Formats: sequence, C-alpha cells, structure tokens
Amino acid sequence: MKAAVIGATGYGGIELIRLLSNHPDFSLHSVYSSSKDQVPATEDYPHLKDICPLPLMKIDPEEITSECDAVFLAVPSGASSALSPKLLKNNTKVIDLSGDLRLKNPEHYEKWYKKTPADLHTLNQAVYGLTEWNREAVKSANLLSNPGCYPTAALLGLAPAIQGEVIDESGIIIDAKSGVSGAGRGLSLAVHFAEMNDNFKIYKVNQHQHIPEIEQQLLLWDHKVSPVTFSTHLLPITRGIMTTMYAQLKKTMTATELHQLYEEAYADDFFVRVRPLGEFPGVKEVAGSNFCDIGITVDERTNRVTIVSVIDNLMKGAAGQAIQNANLMFGFEETAGLKGFPIYP
Amino acid sequence: MKAAVIGATGYGGIELIRLLSNHPDFSLHSVYSSSKDQVPATEDYPHLKDICPLPLMKIDPEEITSECDAVFLAVPSGASSALSPKLLKNNTKVIDLSGDLRLKNPEHYEKWYKKTPADLHTLNQAVYGLTEWNREAVKSANLLSNPGCYPTAALLGLAPAIQGEVIDESGIIIDAKSGVSGAGRGLSLAVHFAEMNDNFKIYKVNQHQHIPEIEQQLLLWDHKVSPVTFSTHLLPITRGIMTTMYAQLKKTMTATELHQLYEEAYADDFFVRVRPLGEFPGVKEVAGSNFCDIGITVDERTNRVTIVSVIDNLMKGAAGQAIQNANLMFGFEETAGLKGFPIYP
Amino acid sequence: MKAAVIGATGYGGIELIRLLSNHPDFSLHSVYSSSKDQVPATEDYPHLKDICPLPLMKIDPEEITSECDAVFLAVPSGASSALSPKLLKNNTKVIDLSGDLRLKNPEHYEKWYKKTPADLHTLNQAVYGLTEWNREAVKSANLLSNPGCYPTAALLGLAPAIQGEVIDESGIIIDAKSGVSGAGRGLSLAVHFAEMNDNFKIYKVNQHQHIPEIEQQLLLWDHKVSPVTFSTHLLPITRGIMTTMYAQLKKTMTATELHQLYEEAYADDFFVRVRPLGEFPGVKEVAGSNFCDIGITVDERTNRVTIVSVIDNLMKGAAGQAIQNANLMFGFEETAGLKGFPIYP
Amino acid sequence: MKAAVIGATGYGGIELIRLLSNHPDFSLHSVYSSSKDQVPATEDYPHLKDICPLPLMKIDPEEITSECDAVFLAVPSGASSALSPKLLKNNTKVIDLSGDLRLKNPEHYEKWYKKTPADLHTLNQAVYGLTEWNREAVKSANLLSNPGCYPTAALLGLAPAIQGEVIDESGIIIDAKSGVSGAGRGLSLAVHFAEMNDNFKIYKVNQHQHIPEIEQQLLLWDHKVSPVTFSTHLLPITRGIMTTMYAQLKKTMTATELHQLYEEAYADDFFVRVRPLGEFPGVKEVAGSNFCDIGITVDERTNRVTIVSVIDNLMKGAAGQAIQNANLMFGFEETAGLKGFPIYP
Repeated sequence: MKAAVIGATGYGGIELIRLLSNHPDFSLHSVYSSSKDQVPATEDYPHLKDICPLPLMKIDPEEITSECDAVFLAVPSGASSALSPKLLKNNTKVIDLSGDLRLKNPEHYEKWYKKTPADLHTLNQAVYGLTEWNREAVKSANLLSNPGCYPTAALLGLAPAIQGEVIDESGIIIDAKSGVSGAGRGLSLAVHFAEMNDNFKIYKVNQHQHIPEIEQQLLLWDHKVSPVTFSTHLLPITRGIMTTMYAQLKKTMTATELHQLYEEAYADDFFVRVRPLGEFPGVKEVAGSNFCDIGITVDERTNRVTIVSVIDNLMKGAAGQAIQNANLMFGFEETAGLKGFPIYP
Repeated sequence: MKAAVIGATGYGGIELIRLLSNHPDFSLHSVYSSSKDQVPATEDYPHLKDICPLPLMKIDPEEITSECDAVFLAVPSGASSALSPKLLKNNTKVIDLSGDLRLKNPEHYEKWYKKTPADLHTLNQAVYGLTEWNREAVKSANLLSNPGCYPTAALLGLAPAIQGEVIDESGIIIDAKSGVSGAGRGLSLAVHFAEMNDNFKIYKVNQHQHIPEIEQQLLLWDHKVSPVTFSTHLLPITRGIMTTMYAQLKKTMTATELHQLYEEAYADDFFVRVRPLGEFPGVKEVAGSNFCDIGITVDERTNRVTIVSVIDNLMKGAAGQAIQNANLMFGFEETAGLKGFPIYP
Repeated sequence: MKAAVIGATGYGGIELIRLLSNHPDFSLHSVYSSSKDQVPATEDYPHLKDICPLPLMKIDPEEITSECDAVFLAVPSGASSALSPKLLKNNTKVIDLSGDLRLKNPEHYEKWYKKTPADLHTLNQAVYGLTEWNREAVKSANLLSNPGCYPTAALLGLAPAIQGEVIDESGIIIDAKSGVSGAGRGLSLAVHFAEMNDNFKIYKVNQHQHIPEIEQQLLLWDHKVSPVTFSTHLLPITRGIMTTMYAQLKKTMTATELHQLYEEAYADDFFVRVRPLGEFPGVKEVAGSNFCDIGITVDERTNRVTIVSVIDNLMKGAAGQAIQNANLMFGFEETAGLKGFPIYP
Repeated sequence: MKAAVIGATGYGGIELIRLLSNHPDFSLHSVYSSSKDQVPATEDYPHLKDICPLPLMKIDPEEITSECDAVFLAVPSGASSALSPKLLKNNTKVIDLSGDLRLKNPEHYEKWYKKTPADLHTLNQAVYGLTEWNREAVKSANLLSNPGCYPTAALLGLAPAIQGEVIDESGIIIDAKSGVSGAGRGLSLAVHFAEMNDNFKIYKVNQHQHIPEIEQQLLLWDHKVSPVTFSTHLLPITRGIMTTMYAQLKKTMTATELHQLYEEAYADDFFVRVRPLGEFPGVKEVAGSNFCDIGITVDERTNRVTIVSVIDNLMKGAAGQAIQNANLMFGFEETAGLKGFPIYP
C-alpha cells in the first residue's frame, strides 16, 4: 500500500517517514509540505541522506488521492479541518494527527483551540483512534483522528480504573510532564536551548487544549466524571511524556487488586505494559518505541491511587499510534512496522 | 563569628563552603568529614583551588566547640542525632541540615527513616527553621533543625492557603520534581549519567521521608489537615525543585483574591517572591539563589487551586536556608551573604 | 542462525539484544553474564519487559558452543582473551567486542591496557573488523575482533586521506568527544549525573588505550605514519562520538578534490555517508543507527584539512558494527538487521 | 561610580546586571535596549523580580554620558562601532563587549565580520582588554575593547608557551567547544532545544570571526606565528568553553618544566589557575565564576604539548572580564565584585 505524509517537515512527519520507510506493508510514496515544492527532504533533515530520496512536494489533494492509499496528515491544528475532506476520495484513507477532528463538539474546539472547527459531517465521520479502547471502530474507519500525546498517556492510564468504577469520578488530577519535541520545530524562546536546558517549567495552566479531549473520552466511559485538573510541564529532554495521576478510591481496594485489574485490562494489548507491582516506569524506558508503560499503587494512608503512565510522545503519542491505527484500517498486523525496541540507554 | 562545616564533602557541605567564604559576618574556620583527616578539600573538589585552602579534618566535637561559634551539620540522617548534643557546648550554636531533628515524634522518625531517633531532650530543643514562618523561635535557637528541601518548597507554597483556611484540608496533592543533586554525591545506578540523562523518573511513591515533615507542619497550622499525597520525581537537571500542588477551594474565591492573599502573606519576606497573577516560575529562575518563587491560580471549572513553588534545592532547600537561619540566630541581617542573584541563563 | 550474547548486562550487550531481537537471519538464543544465573534480564533492564523473555545465564562455553552458531562477546577487556579460545568450537563463530584481540603486538596490549595479553595464536587468528576496509577478511573470519568506538570513527575519517597519500604522515591530531554511554554502566563519580550534567571534560590525555589501535591500522595503510595525538573528551550526552581531525596537506588540493576522493572511497559503502561539501554532521544525526557520517574541508590559509566523523558509539562503535561483521561472516546481507534510521530528534 | 548597561536584554547584558548589582564600587544606574523604552526588565527576565527595579530605556548617548561614569556596551557586533564614539564624552569610560573594536586592521574586520568597520581613530583608541597580559594599558584606557570568549580561553592558554618560545609557531591547532549561551538569545534552529539536546555540532569551520582576533594577539607576542587552525563546536550545555590546543615543542622539554613555566607566568593572577600537573579542568569547575583554569602536558611520544583551558563564556569570556577591566580603569581592586565561587555542582 502506498502511503503519503503531509506535513513532513515537522517532528511528527519526520517520525512517520522513519516508520514508513521500514514498514513491511506500507511503502512511503511521497511527502508533502505546505511551504516547499520539489525540495529534497535532506535540506531540512540532513540525517535522511541516502535513506529518504523523496523531495518535498506542494500539497495537491487530487494528485495525492489518485496515487496513494493512505494519507497521514501531520499538519498543525487548523489546517486538517479543511484538508481532510478533500483527501477522502478514490478510496484513500486518511489518518489525521492534528487536533482538528478529535472533539466531537465544535463549540469545544472553538473554545479551546480558538480556531474555526471542522464541519459536522467530517467530525462525525472521524473515528477517535485510542487504539486499545476503540479497536473495532478503527478497523472500519476511513477517516481516523489520532489522539493527542497527553490524552493518550492519560487515558491509557485512567481507563481500567474509570471503567472498573474504582475511583471517584470527581477530583481526578493529572500532572503531566513532556519532552520538548512535543512543542514542535517552530522556534520560540520557551524552548531556546539556553532557556530550557537545566530548567523545568509549567505552562498553559488549566488552559491546555487536551483537557476537553481527555474529558470527552472519560465521559464516554463514565458519564459521571466531573472536570479534571490537568497540568502540563516541559522537561529538558527531547522525547517522552509521563503523566502522574491521582484519584480517590470509591471503595477499599488493595494495590494488589488494583494491579490485577490493570493486568487483566491490558492482557491482550502488545503496546501497553503494566509494570509489576511496586515498579514504576521512567520515560526513557519507552523511548523510540510505541509502548505505553504503566505503574500503579494504592496509598492506604490516604485511600488514594497513584497511576503513572509513560509514552514516547512522537511514537505512541503521535506517529507510532498513527501507524498502529493505519495497520488496523488496512487489515495488517497491528504491530507491523512497530516492533522496534526502546533505545536504551 | 567563626563557623565550621561538618560533612563538607557532600553537596550541602560544599554549598555551605561557597556561601560562608563570601559571608560578611561569618568566617569559615574549619571543615570536617567523617572519612578524611588532613586532606585538602581540593582533592574532592578541584574547583576550590586557591579559594578554600582549608584541609578536611577528623570530627572532634571538643575541639570544634572550643574554637567555633557556629557549626553547620551537613551529615547524612542518622549521624546528627548523636553528634548534635556533643556540639552544644561552650555557647556554640548548631544548625543541623539532616532529617534527624525535624520530626518531633520519634516514632514517626523510626517509621519513615528506619533509624534510631534522637533523644527527646534534643528533639525538644531543636527549632524547626522554616524561616518565614518561625522567625522569632529561630532567633533564640541554639539548636536549629533546617527543613528538608521538598518540605521547604511545599510548605512555603501551601502556607497562606492553609492558614487562610481557603482550601479543603483533605485531598491535598503535592506533585514534586527535583534535580539530581538532591540525591547527593553517593553513587547509584539511578543517577548514573547514561541512565538519568534524557530521562524522568518517579521514586519512593508514597514512601518519602519528607511526608511526615510536611504533615507535621501543616497540622501545626491547621489541625484538621488530613494525610497528604506527596510524589517525588527526578528531573535530568542538577539543581532545582518544583512542587505543583492541588487542592479544592472551601469557598468560592477568585484567582485575584487568592493572589492577593499570597502577596500579603509574603510582603515582608525578601526570599519569597509571589509572581504576578498568570505567571508561573521555572526552576532555573531561582538557580544559585535563596529565593522561593510562587505562582498560583484558581480553576473555575473545577473550583481547584494550583500552587507552584520553586527553589534551588541546595540553597533555600539546604545551605541557603541554613545560612538564613544562622543569620537570625546570631543577630545578623537575615539576607547577609545571600544576596547573590539567580544565575541566568 | 542462533546467536548468544555474553556480557549482556553492559550497554554493548543490551544493544546487541536490541538488534538481534529484530534481525531477519539471527535469532537471539541465549544471554549470559558473569555475575548472574537464571535471573530475568528485566531485573537489570525493565524496558525489556515482554520483549526479551530470556534469563541471564552463567557462562558455560561448552553449552554455548554446542547450542549457538554465533557468539557475541561483550565482556570487559581482560576477560575475552581467555574466553575466546574456548568458544571457537563446534563451528561456532565468535565476535569479540572487547579490546583484547585488537592489538597484534602483545607488548602494546600490555603497555596500554596494563593487563595480560591474549596468546599469540588467538591474536593471529582474530580478524580486525573495520568492515569497510577489511571486508574480504571478515567474510572468512571465525574469530572477529570488533574495533573500538573511537578507532572506528577516527579510522573511517582518516582512511581515504591516508590511503590517497594526501596528508602529511606526521602531525595528525585527533580530537575526539564521546557520549557517556561509552564509559559503560559501571558507577563512577566522573559520570555521576550531577557531576557530568552541564559539564564537559577531557580525560586520559595521551594515555587512551585506543591510541595504539588507531596507529596500528594507520601503519598498515601507510608505514610512514608517525605517532598521532589523540585526545578524548566526555560529552554530557548519552550516545555519540565526534572526532575532529587535523592534518597538513602534502600537496596543494582543493576542498572539492578532497571531497571527491572521499565520495569515491565510500561510494559502495551503505553505512558511510560523506556529506555534501560545506556540510558537517552532528552526532544526533546518526543516533540509533549504524551510520558513520563524514564532513571534510580544506583551509587554504593553513593548507590543513579538517575531517569530522560521527558515529553512535553503541552502534557503529560497538554492537552495530559487530552485527555488520557477523552478517558478512555468515553470508547474510551486510545491512541485515541494521536498516533502522537515526532517531531524530 | 554609576554604571550603565546598553544591550541589557542579551545574555551578556543580563550577566553584567547580575554582577553590577552586587558590586561594591559600581552602582547600576540604568539599563538600555535598542528595542525597548520604559519596559520593566522583568518582562524579559522574570528572575529579576524585586532585585532589578530598573526599566529598559531607549539608548540616548547624551543622557547616558551626562549621568554615568561607566558604560558597558553589550550590543551585537556592527552597533558598537557607531555608538562608542558618542559615548566617550563627559569623562565617561566605555567598555565594549562586541567584536567591533578588537581588530586593529579594519580590512580584517570587513573580511571576517562582513560589516563596515569602525573608524581608525576609534580603533586606535580602543585598548584590548585581555587583562592578565595588558594590565597597564587597561588601567589608563577610556575605551576598552573586551576580548571575545574563545580568544580569551585560547590566548590565556597559549600565552606562556608562545611568549616562552617553547612551541613551534606553525601548526597551532585550537579545538574549541562552547556552551550554547555563547550563541546568544536570538532564536535559531541550531539551538532549538530538541535539535541541540543530546547533540554536539561543529560550526563555522575555518570561518569563525575570532580567528583573526587570536592571530592578532599571537603575532604581537611572536611575529613568527603562522595562521592557526581554529574549530568551534556547540556543546549541549548552557555555559562554558573548553579549548583543547595542540602544538609541537621547539625543543625538548618535560611536562614538569612546561608546568613550571605556566605556574610562574600566572603566579600573580588571581583569575587564572594553573592546575597541578596531571590534572585537567572540566568546564563546570569554573561555572558562574571569572576563573580561567588551565591544564597542560607534554606527550613524549609525539613531542607535542596539549593545553586545555576552560572559562565561563559569560563571565571571563564576557561580563566578568568586562568588570575586571572596568575595575582597573577606575582604580578599584581588580577582583571587586568578582569573588563569587564557581557554582558546583
């Protein structure tokens, strides 16, 4: 199957190129950028020398859909809403990595993204690709909305507890920390090396656009969930997200029981690894891979649970999960092209 | 006044040497280590060449108290409990940076530190040196117990909200992140460079010995406070702590009102800087200084407050606050020797 | 073909496990450690959960050679010399990543490694695996001595210039910088995070054991080469080596001519990429891959060349090149299992 | 004495503010920026809260010279040449941190900086402030040209060997590595965090504008010096420069003899510390201080010397040396305001 990547100069795009170049079932057919035309990809990314001979091309939906079976949209939020419908032609399937198609309620999009939402038809068509919890719908999707990096980590960590109705639906706290690649390749003082090195910052307090995405999914699982507190911090590392989550137990439960609940929930999911009780993952332990590792415990002093989940934000948080979803959409093995181990150290 | 540093080869000790060497009222008289005798300090720390000509000496309490007015104890927990009483002679005043004298209840110490507690007489004599909130007692102390790094950041951040009775006493969450110097100079795989670089880890979940220290002080301020959730993470940076704290408001309160409460609480405290509303501090913004910077907000969606405090763990979290306390104990200016700016970038 | 890794708990060993687990022609059969027996590999490396179910076993040469076709020796220098001969049985082929079999002259080994050298028979049998320049010998080797990380970078960078007799054989300067994983997993203050972070150090000045390895190979290419100056520095990064090399031109030559010489020399080598004239590689641009990237220029003011080569020290500098050599020894594609792109960013 | 800082929003400017705020003899009177007018300095640098109440002002030479005794110019190269003459009024003394007044030959400036040079009168008036080697001229200077960061490290390291005529004047190699703050606060992809973290790069090969500055001074010391090779690399750290330098001995000399030469050369210089023979400095060992630490050795195999010097590029490489020079110009203690220790770790 022929695959195209639109938005190939961003970090999500370049990670898709890496994965598609070694994929057993997809071949990387062409790469596109809104700002380039016939420019070698190596001009932006010298590390691609000899391994990605494709030039960056101007985005031409007609041409793309006539030539490609799968299109990965790694463009900024605000651009996908218009592009997606034009790409759903000639049986082409679209995997959108932006935030444009994630919120089913266009008012939520407008409020949190401060941009014009996609039309309702497109929104309704889009399947939310939190793979482990929406596998059947993903398999039949033509338009896939790939989850945000933070929501992926947070939701995979919270799902068994919420679905198992073991935690209080009010008062969920998500303290999230992300590597700097999550902020993209656009220049800004906040991620200027001398400002970010040996530093640690909190940002967008109570205002991050991933809040409604997390709540939307939690409410689908349990309509009693009340608004969550979600904080985002920048780590002086390149890749990786950790979410540390806190919630009150609804009933008495031992750590062992909670752990068993998690192990059972993810028993059949290759990419979610529940760590042995007492062990918590570090972000480096999933770097370069599509894994989401989870550690959990119960504090008997407070009757509160602590749930820790880690992902590589460019993999399970973006390009990796996009490939995982595309694999299902095209009937390939779910793990095809994603069996690379974490790079450690 | 002549000052001695015991435990001079650790990071807390070396920071005391840096500060005392440029102090207007203290002179650094001698430095001690449990494992050295007549060894130049430059052997452990080549950066001291030409600026600290003192040799490391064997610890001899008799000699120390006969020669020095102030003794800074920067030894590991477990060693201070025995040393402190021996140093309280000849009018010598002792500032203990270890955890040995912080918990007034010896059972708490035994439970969390898993070591033999200090005797009750010594514990009762020790004044807890969270300077901004215990200034008068500090002034008349002969034995000062310097707060832990995490408790300093957490308590300075929580104090106005707890004392103002604006937050719910149950359900306080403290998500703390620390630079690696907090783990000391002792070798361990966890802080081996190749393991910690580009990494981020959670550790001692629900088991950190700073939990009872935080709770002890919160209970002194408000006896209704229930056990807190306190998590500690390791940042791939050298210096700096951020605590991100969450609590439910007891009554409706705007961010502006909360901010005003904080500004008033710390109006006269040079080393606590409440940031303008909407601004949150990064850890680098206090690096190398004795400041604790605080940012706060209220989330109207959840009626929850977010409080962020940052310190340099070796300064306000250890050596800096120790000097600040010693200044008061000896009647010097509270800021003497501590006016160095943050090193930025 | 069944492969074993001996010394599986070091960084070289763990990288071999990563590569062999995804190799099309080798299967990872068993892993060994001198200090473990029947211990799950995940105990040392939690990131291996679900992907490397093998236990670490005690080293038993009899058993290993009866079960495995290929043995990768990733043990410290000093251990290979004794182990290698015992593993050359039952048609088992051995790839040794240590320094024990690199120096043909046992006196050189004794002088620089300060250990007992391997016996002459074993030394003579060992083929030096700088793949690109010794391919035919590698193909027929049963005992392969994998080059050191620094020599790989330095020699690939110098080879065309030395062989083309364009640079002065005296006065070659090699200024090398390495990521900290090159120092291994053994604890030491030098690579304690708080000491190495935001730091940069020079070490083993004029005393590094890779000096005779570099000179031995240069002399094979040109017997007129005089002793080189080789300096090693530690970078505050995990992976990556850069060697910046300086030499006087023997004759007038433009940068364009020199560049052409390099392009021709490596035209058929997949893993050596000569960068376009005017472009120099950064170490991150080969991270996680088996590439060696080279940039070169000529300074007309000084008539000197500057040659820059970068590798991932755990890949082309250790495990990657070991697999590359094993591929040739067993008649597989040279690039089998090594087509992973650099992880960027 | 009243001091002004022009160009206060750059890293050199902010470091001058840090130093002048704690200086015993200078008081920081006003701060200026080409792009701001009446804007609080905390807007650009929140860490200045409560400690630098000054607003950034528009640059008005008339006003500045009428109010201030000392003006520190921390503007980019190209701006000083025009500003300096206007500031030399009313007995105001000017310390220029830019590159504009360093090269006595305007053609050199034009060639390497690709900008219009300062007029000859101004160039002739400017005293080059490599303090340790030009102390008398500095004392009587009204216009001081502060050396570049790289030249400071390189020249302090080479001076005793060149002046002692112990090294060959041809074939001097300077391999320099700098922290990223040296690249300033201007945004660029090269120092975008995700690109620079865990990376190491070479840049401006043979084209760095500090080459003629180094050569100009070497030639003043020894007119036989031929063009040097000078390479610059970017380290993934904030502060610090190391230059590793190589040269051929002209005569036989032991390391001990060379070391003695260096110790004698710098015996009276507080800020240059020659390390004990066999010891080499790391960049962190001078961080935050005005020290230049030097390690040297002789390789008997090659008859070559290796000289290593480290500085904090914002201190001895910029603001620190500027204050050191200003102290001399105004008759203060050379070390006034500069006695802060290295911040370690």
